[in-house]
Amino acid sequence: MKLSIERGTLLKALAQAQSVVERRNTIPILANVLIEAEGAQVSFRATDLDIEVVDRAAAMVERPGATTVSAVMLHEIVRKLPDGALVNLTEDATSGRLTITAGRSTFSLATLPREDFPVMASSEYSSNFSAKAPELRRLFDKAKFAISTEETRYYLNGVYMHTSTGESGPVLRCVATDGHRLARIDATLPEGAAGMPGVIVPRKTVNELRKLLDDDEATIAVSVSETKVRFATPAITLTSKVIDGTFPDYTRVIPQNNTRRLEVDATEFAKAVDRVATVSSERSRAVKLSLDEDRLVLSVNAPDSGAAEEELAVAYADERLEIGFNAKYLLEIASQVDRENAVFLFNSSGDPTLMREGNDTSAVYVVMPMRV
Amino acid sequence: MKLSIERGTLLKALAQAQSVVERRNTIPILANVLIEAEGAQVSFRATDLDIEVVDRAAAMVERPGATTVSAVMLHEIVRKLPDGALVNLTEDATSGRLTITAGRSTFSLATLPREDFPVMASSEYSSNFSAKAPELRRLFDKAKFAISTEETRYYLNGVYMHTSTGESGPVLRCVATDGHRLARIDATLPEGAAGMPGVIVPRKTVNELRKLLDDDEATIAVSVSETKVRFATPAITLTSKVIDGTFPDYTRVIPQNNTRRLEVDATEFAKAVDRVATVSSERSRAVKLSLDEDRLVLSVNAPDSGAAEEELAVAYADERLEIGFNAKYLLEIASQVDRENAVFLFNSSGDPTLMREGNDTSAVYVVMPMRV
Repeated sequence: MKLSIERGTLLKALAQAQSVVERRNTIPILANVLIEAEGAQVSFRATDLDIEVVDRAAAMVERPGATTVSAVMLHEIVRKLPDGALVNLTEDATSGRLTITAGRSTFSLATLPREDFPVMASSEYSSNFSAKAPELRRLFDKAKFAISTEETRYYLNGVYMHTSTGESGPVLRCVATDGHRLARIDATLPEGAAGMPGVIVPRKTVNELRKLLDDDEATIAVSVSETKVRFATPAITLTSKVIDGTFPDYTRVIPQNNTRRLEVDATEFAKAVDRVATVSSERSRAVKLSLDEDRLVLSVNAPDSGAAEEELAVAYADERLEIGFNAKYLLEIASQVDRENAVFLFNSSGDPTLMREGNDTSAVYVVMPMRV
Repeated sequence: MKLSIERGTLLKALAQAQSVVERRNTIPILANVLIEAEGAQVSFRATDLDIEVVDRAAAMVERPGATTVSAVMLHEIVRKLPDGALVNLTEDATSGRLTITAGRSTFSLATLPREDFPVMASSEYSSNFSAKAPELRRLFDKAKFAISTEETRYYLNGVYMHTSTGESGPVLRCVATDGHRLARIDATLPEGAAGMPGVIVPRKTVNELRKLLDDDEATIAVSVSETKVRFATPAITLTSKVIDGTFPDYTRVIPQNNTRRLEVDATEFAKAVDRVATVSSERSRAVKLSLDEDRLVLSVNAPDSGAAEEELAVAYADERLEIGFNAKYLLEIASQVDRENAVFLFNSSGDPTLMREGNDTSAVYVVMPMRV
């Protein structure tokens, strides 16, 4: 293998590969990236056995071929090369090294045989559809804070992507929950997505996917089977196993009959919650919301260290209510609101509370109260 | 105690206090800041028993008094208050609480009696002088990277500030070393500093002092005794115990007869060292410098992972030399050079190497070679 490629192009192509590679590997080849050059193209493939990413870039290929080298080291080298440099990659089959030259720098990296690289088996996908990057970004970004980190509840360690019916018709829906809070985000069902199997997309895949979604103009090809999901742009293909488990029936958790309605400026609310929570040094800080006519008092009482109280002008027309929440959960939920008005719908101080933006039911959050 | 103070002024005054306070304290009062209000002034005092900082600010004092509250919590609260807010601090002697109000927020923090707060005994200082902030900043900034972190060699855990004689007369000198590298920085001896005792200023004090030195126009009053050192601006007084030990005779370590002179662009050199070091995953990475007429080749050989080589055009007129250094040490030393030309003076590949900026002997660095 022998090829030349512009440093910026190479850096971009390696960025996602090195991110998929796990930093601590017991299997040496999993630390490597598989470089394959053919035609006018070079591809970089990395895997952790659950996720595989392939990134393609244009290159001047003098001699086709394939080899594997340390993904992190190659990425670091390219990152440190001067901007605009032309990088030459040459495989020396006799020494088993890959030589990288640019300007007056020469590097040679140990290789491992391409045959040893575990390429993910290709699958039949039962559903194929495409979606605009901003749509997918919204679905996953707004849901992922609620993903559980409890390894014993592995079926909650991801975002449940499936089809359902929203208020105005069929939707592509992402749901995540850790038992304390839940996010349910809907987008118009893309053509071809009807009948797709529901899949639990693991947390790491959600994070890797995020990097494909930055370009507002991009269209992402999505393929789904019972066991795998694939997201692809013309340059990058991200394939991931899905979590082998059953996502719980979340619909039962979403309150339908909460009628006490509070409307509040999400930014002001978040700042006030953050301030009053300061006086408690505990990790799970309970903030009490005391609601009265058009008036919300946030308070925290930490007997050892102190107390705090702040009043906010809000829209609330129902009877008095006192209810407590984990400050962190409130802050996370409030930060999902893009527009200014967050609407909370309460039932009693012991029941789950619903939050959404205004009357928009395409993004709905549920949070469990805490006793205060 | 009852006073009002502008939020920005209060935040600035608390910044240094909360930084001196250790995050994990077995003695509860050491987590607190002592607030003392009198006249038109409020002062904030914090200590870790080795360092004490007092920060004074103008305030509207309605009722003089003093109390102590959690430094970190008070700082956090003030930080989260809106910019421009007027903050009221009121001590309630009966409840033992300090009430903080601003706008519609009210906080009350637990207090500890001011009598329990350990105020550092005042000392007689044998030397008093003043120095411009940029002078002190240079002395400490350029020396501190070489401070040892080895706790058993406690006498190296700081910067040795003392008087000496430089090439052009008496100097105030800062020296730090960890046995592998050494920094010796000189400044013109300030009036009144002659005869001052040499003191080892602990690392934490060096870091805290740094915050006093940002203002280029500031003049710092320095006081030194055998056991303590004090740095003061009109608003802040930082007092610190010095390390009770004898700083080794560093002069013997500084080579006097190194004649092989290499002149190199410090930035280009650092970038090249950083690049070639990438191929080694070990922590103490050895970089080999191969010198020949006006030519420097940097190389790293890590048998397991790879090799790297880079050539630099330099000024070198002596005989061939090969010498190895820890890459991290070379990078740290090269980053001390503000102007472009770093001058290295070598003897043999086994002897300490000297580095300075051009012919300027007011900042001199020594680094021990490594076998490569």
